[in-house]
Amino acid sequence: MSGTEAGASALNRILETVVESVKERIRPTKEELEAAWDFFHEVKELIESSLKLRYEFKVELEGSLAKGTCLRNEMDLDIFILVRNDAINNEWIKREIIDPLIPPLSARYAVQLRYATHPYIHVVRDDGIEADIVPAYWARSIKEIKTSVDRTPFHTRYVINNLSDAQKDEVRLLKKFFKGIGVYGAEVKVEGFSGYLCELLIIKYGNFIDTLKSISKWKIPHVVAIGDLPKHEVKLLLKLFKDSALIFPDPVDLKRNAAAAVSKRSLSLAIVASTCFLTNPSETFFFPKREAVSIEKLGKYIIESKRCLSFIVLKINEELVPDVLWGILKKILKRGESIISQFDFKVVDSRVWSDEKEIAVLFYETESCNLSEYKLHEGPPPHVKGNLSKFINKYLGNRTVFGPWISGDGRPYVLRKRKYTEITDVLRKEVISSLPKEFSVIDIIVNVLTKLPGKLLADKDFTYWLTEAVLKVPSWMEAGCRSDSSSSTLC
Amino acid sequence: MSGTEAGASALNRILETVVESVKERIRPTKEELEAAWDFFHEVKELIESSLKLRYEFKVELEGSLAKGTCLRNEMDLDIFILVRNDAINNEWIKREIIDPLIPPLSARYAVQLRYATHPYIHVVRDDGIEADIVPAYWARSIKEIKTSVDRTPFHTRYVINNLSDAQKDEVRLLKKFFKGIGVYGAEVKVEGFSGYLCELLIIKYGNFIDTLKSISKWKIPHVVAIGDLPKHEVKLLLKLFKDSALIFPDPVDLKRNAAAAVSKRSLSLAIVASTCFLTNPSETFFFPKREAVSIEKLGKYIIESKRCLSFIVLKINEELVPDVLWGILKKILKRGESIISQFDFKVVDSRVWSDEKEIAVLFYETESCNLSEYKLHEGPPPHVKGNLSKFINKYLGNRTVFGPWISGDGRPYVLRKRKYTEITDVLRKEVISSLPKEFSVIDIIVNVLTKLPGKLLADKDFTYWLTEAVLKVPSWMEAGCRSDSSSSTLC
Repeated sequence: MSGTEAGASALNRILETVVESVKERIRPTKEELEAAWDFFHEVKELIESSLKLRYEFKVELEGSLAKGTCLRNEMDLDIFILVRNDAINNEWIKREIIDPLIPPLSARYAVQLRYATHPYIHVVRDDGIEADIVPAYWARSIKEIKTSVDRTPFHTRYVINNLSDAQKDEVRLLKKFFKGIGVYGAEVKVEGFSGYLCELLIIKYGNFIDTLKSISKWKIPHVVAIGDLPKHEVKLLLKLFKDSALIFPDPVDLKRNAAAAVSKRSLSLAIVASTCFLTNPSETFFFPKREAVSIEKLGKYIIESKRCLSFIVLKINEELVPDVLWGILKKILKRGESIISQFDFKVVDSRVWSDEKEIAVLFYETESCNLSEYKLHEGPPPHVKGNLSKFINKYLGNRTVFGPWISGDGRPYVLRKRKYTEITDVLRKEVISSLPKEFSVIDIIVNVLTKLPGKLLADKDFTYWLTEAVLKVPSWMEAGCRSDSSSSTLC
Repeated sequence: MSGTEAGASALNRILETVVESVKERIRPTKEELEAAWDFFHEVKELIESSLKLRYEFKVELEGSLAKGTCLRNEMDLDIFILVRNDAINNEWIKREIIDPLIPPLSARYAVQLRYATHPYIHVVRDDGIEADIVPAYWARSIKEIKTSVDRTPFHTRYVINNLSDAQKDEVRLLKKFFKGIGVYGAEVKVEGFSGYLCELLIIKYGNFIDTLKSISKWKIPHVVAIGDLPKHEVKLLLKLFKDSALIFPDPVDLKRNAAAAVSKRSLSLAIVASTCFLTNPSETFFFPKREAVSIEKLGKYIIESKRCLSFIVLKINEELVPDVLWGILKKILKRGESIISQFDFKVVDSRVWSDEKEIAVLFYETESCNLSEYKLHEGPPPHVKGNLSKFINKYLGNRTVFGPWISGDGRPYVLRKRKYTEITDVLRKEVISSLPKEFSVIDIIVNVLTKLPGKLLADKDFTYWLTEAVLKVPSWMEAGCRSDSSSSTLC
């Protein structure tokens, strides 16, 4: 056996050990599973005895519990009420299903009415298990579905039919891995890998390690499908889903991209993490320690590095479902970035945080906090007839410029006074005024972290986020991708 | 007569008045001309009596005096010794012409040996008139010329045959106008319009005002020729002389561009000045007052505007003819600019000055004197397989960076420490070391004008140049292009 062969086989042994150990830690316990199934039957009976519908219907368990791919301590049930009513709509659902169910459910559980594409009911049992009760149209085939929720039963059946028992552990590993590096979930906040997509990947590649081996070799955009794809179909799919970072035709509905939610950022993170894990296998990726560095230490890094970090602390004025909230927040983050850039400040990083209830924080790091008083303003190129003299005429005698003069390229130039030289002024006078009514400004803070509201500084999740905003390296990357595996020098 | 017609005719009257008045001021006096011609005959006789050549030769007056287009007080004679020797070369010229002529010339005039394509003799008579005595090959037709000086007699003859007496005044106007705005002369320092090109333009357009009317409508590049050019020939010429701002096929040698020396900058200046003069005619363009603002005032502008002006003062170590000196200076100015830009300082203006003997000054204005400690460094795009992880590996654990992290575009980034944050360090450690041996550094000065060597500050030409480097507007533009014709607010 050669040296590298020996190294490879040692690495493989470590990989297997890590994977086996994690599998044990994330598989739901027998008790958990019994309690969850018991909860399902309880709810099912209650629904069946409470609903008097003129249409055929059934109560069915969907999601990861049904598919056997749920993670320990994370048993959220998806209970679907499938109704064979062609004219199903929100009003009908509200009147015929939601209204009759609320009283009997409330008698036994904590109940909340929620909205996605349909209204649905969220219930929590005394022992802490949660379930979503979702009305949907009972389609006989995928062609009959009316909204995307109607597709769920087809996903459940597909996975049950195509995933072996052993592979359920592999799905759990992949989910937990993606959770660890922050790319699990198709919601707007994460823009990552859904549970269903994880199941498809394991069906495709067989197991967790082979999935990571493939991912580590991907470039963006990437096309993957159950079965082999001829080149011309790959081309076709790239054209059809041209804004997608990852394309995985949904096997139950081939015209749909099951990976549509995955952003470039999430996919890049998955690629990097896969590479890191395969060369440096460790449980850290599945159970990362998110560390919060103290405000004092972070403040010291900022002062010493002379960087410019700006925070706009926002109050959320309206109750918004998370996907809507994050959608707006990401949009205003982008808009702010474009405003800041427009005034010549170079944005090197932008992030957003929210507790999803009361407060949100926009974060912009710019190359510097201030710019020169004057900037170069370029006139028309000399191959445009007449404009040269127009430019000269416009600026000659203007007290706020130096010039005009003509440079070696034959163009006229002036040095023009900037509108803003301080980032705080841009934030205060331009960014803030572009905010939608859902938000109001609590404070604008530049560099002085101690001025952040005490409520934020007491929020663990915020301080984790803040640490990463300042130090930049995600904690899993710091711990899991370092080849020398010595601990960080910064923290 | 309508209002605009009345305005136009009033403008025309002013134009004519200005032009007529300037004509009188720049036409050489009878005495000057007599003295010049007398000088020519003196030199001619001296040469003819001193030279004993085995080849046929003649002494002939060339240049503006011969063509009748010279300006008052600027009578430099071009006296050519044309020799019918096919084997003419520098060695032969030195032995057979220069060496025999130096003693008899020295007996009567101040004499200097100079070099261009050929060696030639510069003489100055007691009354101050100067002459270049240039040996050249006596070509029977333009096809026979061996070097560019041999072409001069053909130019002289062409202009004499094609320029009317009245047009000689028009040539003088155009030359003086170009001198006033700093674009007269084909030498490397100016990169502008030669005397011959001015003559060609008047032959083409008839008179001074019609020439300016045409120039004011040009865009760059522009093609002009004696006679009309069909479109396909214009295209051909643009291709043939694709680096030229202005193309004017030399009527005595159609494959040569008589305007090859004209830079984009000079041509743009000519276009702007033509437009300004035609709408705001004034003698200022011909006799501009170059004003030097005091060092104290200039220093105040710099401090108040928070700009960043750097000067590298150079000692010239070798005696260089001006065209060679300016060639090198312009090259090192450009190279310095590219070095400064490479370290992220934005160069908004660069200029160079020299007394052409001992001292030269490189000038760079940058947007600011310092940059942030850290700059954003972009990793590979996610459509390149494998490079993503290489980048992460390269920077992870590096104490001098913040990051790596992955941004919304899927790319990895780091904040990397800059090599230089101060412009002085870039100048001192990078620009200086790239200087050729012909120069050594006397001093580097940033913003504090009073630190410039006293010798420079006492040099009128330097202080004019410095004023323009700081205030940017050329003085003729400030005075001649202002439509409100109020005086400058800055000076």
